[in-house]
Amino acid sequence: MAAPLDASKLQITKTTTPATPLPNNQLKFGQSFTDHILEIDWTVEEGWGTPTITPYHDFKMDPATVVLHYSFELFEGLKAYRDSNGQIRTFRPDKNMERMNRSAKRASLPQFDSEEFIKLIHQFLLLDERFVPSGKGYSLYLRPTLIGTSIGLGVSSPTKAKLYMIASPVGPYFGAGFKPVSLEATDYAVRAWPKGVGSYKLGANYVSCIEPQAEAAKRGHSQNLWLFGDEGEITEVGAMNVFFAFANEDGTKELATAPLDGMILPGVTRDSAIQLCKEKLGKEWIVSERKITIHEVKERAAKGQLIEAFGTGTAAIVAPINNIEFRGEQITVPCSAGGSGEIAKSVCEWVQNIQYGDEEFKDWSRVAA
Amino acid sequence: MAAPLDASKLQITKTTTPATPLPNNQLKFGQSFTDHILEIDWTVEEGWGTPTITPYHDFKMDPATVVLHYSFELFEGLKAYRDSNGQIRTFRPDKNMERMNRSAKRASLPQFDSEEFIKLIHQFLLLDERFVPSGKGYSLYLRPTLIGTSIGLGVSSPTKAKLYMIASPVGPYFGAGFKPVSLEATDYAVRAWPKGVGSYKLGANYVSCIEPQAEAAKRGHSQNLWLFGDEGEITEVGAMNVFFAFANEDGTKELATAPLDGMILPGVTRDSAIQLCKEKLGKEWIVSERKITIHEVKERAAKGQLIEAFGTGTAAIVAPINNIEFRGEQITVPCSAGGSGEIAKSVCEWVQNIQYGDEEFKDWSRVAA
Repeated sequence: MAAPLDASKLQITKTTTPATPLPNNQLKFGQSFTDHILEIDWTVEEGWGTPTITPYHDFKMDPATVVLHYSFELFEGLKAYRDSNGQIRTFRPDKNMERMNRSAKRASLPQFDSEEFIKLIHQFLLLDERFVPSGKGYSLYLRPTLIGTSIGLGVSSPTKAKLYMIASPVGPYFGAGFKPVSLEATDYAVRAWPKGVGSYKLGANYVSCIEPQAEAAKRGHSQNLWLFGDEGEITEVGAMNVFFAFANEDGTKELATAPLDGMILPGVTRDSAIQLCKEKLGKEWIVSERKITIHEVKERAAKGQLIEAFGTGTAAIVAPINNIEFRGEQITVPCSAGGSGEIAKSVCEWVQNIQYGDEEFKDWSRVAA
Repeated sequence: MAAPLDASKLQITKTTTPATPLPNNQLKFGQSFTDHILEIDWTVEEGWGTPTITPYHDFKMDPATVVLHYSFELFEGLKAYRDSNGQIRTFRPDKNMERMNRSAKRASLPQFDSEEFIKLIHQFLLLDERFVPSGKGYSLYLRPTLIGTSIGLGVSSPTKAKLYMIASPVGPYFGAGFKPVSLEATDYAVRAWPKGVGSYKLGANYVSCIEPQAEAAKRGHSQNLWLFGDEGEITEVGAMNVFFAFANEDGTKELATAPLDGMILPGVTRDSAIQLCKEKLGKEWIVSERKITIHEVKERAAKGQLIEAFGTGTAAIVAPINNIEFRGEQITVPCSAGGSGEIAKSVCEWVQNIQYGDEEFKDWSRVAA
């Protein structure tokens, strides 16, 4: 019988050449890595093999390995934080593992027990804890990855796979303080569609994002805003979810984000922002998941009803937006709190307080042990 | 200045342990490979490096290589044939290279001079010509592949890439003679979308095909038929293009296939079949690229107006269809020539005659030299 993932079987081989962690001011996103790698191989006959943590090393890969041809690859992004007591914490890792298993199923790759993998992640963190930086905004970015490793050019379910995790110490995504981003609305390419795979964290969803991003950059924008369909439905910004705050004519206010209709990634930060805003914003606020079109944003900005807008994601937590270009016209987005709007600023603080263990909220922050 | 791809710089290191090619009856698609691999590395600063042909070997790959995370990967599939004089031939390799360059641009990977790469392919074939099997239906399947090889987790254009080719001796896709396939029409998942990337040969388009294929197999079908949109537009069958032959009430006949609207792969066999049928089918035939819906197929089958249907692709050339299940109903597709329809049988013969050099047609068959 195919074996389930079993964290108790972990075998650790420590590096004999430990690296010195970089100082905080030299950290670049995803460029330097910790001393070790976590790996678990799977075969269709045997199931999950022995989990290992060994010195970070290259893979040996046959050029006919299926991951290189048919995109049998998916990943997660989450972070580990050092709290004020020096303990290492992860933020809602169960949400990432739930999504990773959803992605695995859709990609015909093997699923696994989420809690067993979280135990392994925590063991990894205890071993490489020297690489978890201190200081708000600093963290260790974790990259669990699942790839198909069987060899052969037939297009079919992989019979071998590798689940692995590497980790990269990172600083604040936008440096010190907020720097709002300018967007170009993309309507010449679509990221996702109904009944497609846009809601899974597959590598396949990323390759097609570079060209629209580069096009936006040519015209001075830092991200592109994905639209869908004839009505110009807003789905995502670059690789982040997106929120808009509107003032209604009756005095109420609305914080709106695109719904989980299969066309957007179900972001952990998106979900956290929704839950926190429902609990912490004032009574005049309605938090809704609904279709938002670029035309609504444009019209409400013109009427002075657009309060603010921001993207959410693990890397940046929030990315305030100050401008959207749509078909050559500029939509100015207010940033009433300086480099961001008030909600973006609050969400960032609320989330960080939980991530760094300064505030307990539900079971969202877990201490690695 | 970044260097262009230059075939004249090729460096060859022959294997010292040549393998014995398998006998024809042991060939399995994409399972065994020839003695060598063709590789050309690229960097954004230097451009294309020295092309090499060396003994087939594993790659060394950092676990943070971009191809493993963001699906910077694309490929081609073409074949080399041994003609009756023992010469090695390729079939329309310029079409594959044109498509590969289109895919590369969309995937933010480097483009290259098609004819230079074809020269390298032909050099590879002359070196490994022992592995090109003899006999109609037997060939050497070539897999040019382009992957992003820069290291780091930032989502941006790769600054390093590898163009490589491996080759696998193969036999007839369906064994001796035609074996028609039964399809399940898929309307719960969508392969491609207008303004999406369905017309590029990206690895990203394949990972999502396995689950619908497995679902179809559960119900006894050998492939799934991809539908699109509320009207049930037919786009592809599995990973092949698809043709339907209809009898019209006025006595004319139509061979129809889905148009190149960005939602289907522009197949080389598809294009060849269209051109050959326009030239060789009788005067009563109209060959058209147009939208075909599953409802039209169902209705015309019921009226006795469906003459035949088949998929086209490099692996099988043609795959005759004898049945389509749509929402639990079976549409029976005639196979008037035994295991296939008359056109499928003719197209297969016409294409093979050119591929094996028995007939010259335009510049489609090239002798490796």
